[in-house]
Amino acid sequence: MGTKGWETLEKVKACIPSHCFTIADAKRGDIGNTSAMYAKAFFEFFNFDAVTVAPYMGRDSVEPFLAYDNKWVIVLGLTSNQGAQDFEMLDMGGEKLYEKVITTVASWGTPQNTMFVVGATHPHLIKQVRDLVPDYFFLVPGVGAQGGDMQMTCENGLNQDIGLLINSSRNILYASSDENFGRSARQACLAVLEEMKPFI
Amino acid sequence: MGTKGWETLEKVKACIPSHCFTIADAKRGDIGNTSAMYAKAFFEFFNFDAVTVAPYMGRDSVEPFLAYDNKWVIVLGLTSNQGAQDFEMLDMGGEKLYEKVITTVASWGTPQNTMFVVGATHPHLIKQVRDLVPDYFFLVPGVGAQGGDMQMTCENGLNQDIGLLINSSRNILYASSDENFGRSARQACLAVLEEMKPFI
Repeated sequence: MGTKGWETLEKVKACIPSHCFTIADAKRGDIGNTSAMYAKAFFEFFNFDAVTVAPYMGRDSVEPFLAYDNKWVIVLGLTSNQGAQDFEMLDMGGEKLYEKVITTVASWGTPQNTMFVVGATHPHLIKQVRDLVPDYFFLVPGVGAQGGDMQMTCENGLNQDIGLLINSSRNILYASSDENFGRSARQACLAVLEEMKPFI
Repeated sequence: MGTKGWETLEKVKACIPSHCFTIADAKRGDIGNTSAMYAKAFFEFFNFDAVTVAPYMGRDSVEPFLAYDNKWVIVLGLTSNQGAQDFEMLDMGGEKLYEKVITTVASWGTPQNTMFVVGATHPHLIKQVRDLVPDYFFLVPGVGAQGGDMQMTCENGLNQDIGLLINSSRNILYASSDENFGRSARQACLAVLEEMKPFI
C-alpha cells in the first residue's frame, strides 16, 4: 500500500509471463452498472484472466463479469475462513446458503467461464460440492497457512479435468523476509507441487 | 479508470472539505488478514470516515473494519438492485437472509460504528428492518436513477436520530456532460434536499 498502489499492481502484472493464468483476488460485487466497470478494470485494463466475485448482491452483480469471452469469474462459494459458518453455512430448509449460491450461479454461467471458491479447510464438504457441480473448476484456498488438508481436498475434489486450482498465498509470499526471498519462495512453491503430485 | 487511478482517488478525496462525512462505497470483505489491510487502506491511508462491506464471508471479514475508533462500517443488508432477490431475500425458515445478516452484524458492532445498506427500492421492507434494528443508521441508495420512493423511505425508516443517509449518486454524477456540470450537479443535489425536507 502506498501512493503508487495502482502502478505497483501494473508492474507486478507486467512481471508475470503471459502464459501464466492470472487471478485478481479482488472479491468484487456491486450493482450492475458498477460491476461492469470493475469487470472492465480487471479484464480490459489490467488484462487479468480471472477475478473473484462476491455473490451476495445476486445476478446483476455477477453477470457483467460473465459477459467477457475467454475470461473467468470465480465466485465465492464456501470460503476457507472461520466466518464461513456465519452466513454461508446457514441452513435454508435442507440446503445451505453456499449450496444455493453455487447451484444458482452455475446456472448463470458455464464451466467455461465460471469457477467457485471452495476452501480446503472444509475437505469433508468438497466432495458434496463436487457432486453439485461436477464440471466446474474450484479455486481452493486454505492449503498452507490456513491448515487445509491437501490429500482430502484432492481425493474429494478432483474431476476428469482435474478441476482444482489449489491456491497457496501466504506460504509463498511470506516464505522469507531476507535477501534470499526468491529462493525461499521458489522452494515453497515446489513444496506445494510436490505435495500435490501423488494425487494428479 | 486510468493509469493514475490511485492518485485520482487521492485528489478527489482532497477536494472534499474535512467536515463532510466520506464513504468509500468499496463493498470489501475478505479473510481477516486481507480485510485488515483494506481497513487500513480506506481508514488510515485515504482517511475515509466509512466504508461499505459485503457480509458473505462472515465475522472475521467484517471485524477488522470495526476495530477502528470514530470510523463506520456500512454492511450490505438489503441492496437496491434487482439481484437482491437472488440470495438476500431467500427464506431460511421464517427469516430472510438479509434479516439474519442485519441482526447478526448488529450484534458484532454498535449503533456508533455500524450502519446497514437498505435500498429505497424496497420501501415496504424498510419499516420491518427499522423494527429489527431501531437504533442503527441506514445508508439508503436507490432514490433517483433506480426509482426508489423518498416519501415511503422516510416514513418507514426515520428514527429519533433521523437514522437515514439517503444516497443519490448517478442523478448527481451524471447531471450533465457539458461545461455546466457544476451548476447542474448542484441543482440535482438541491432537488434531493428539497424532496427530503417535508419528512425531516
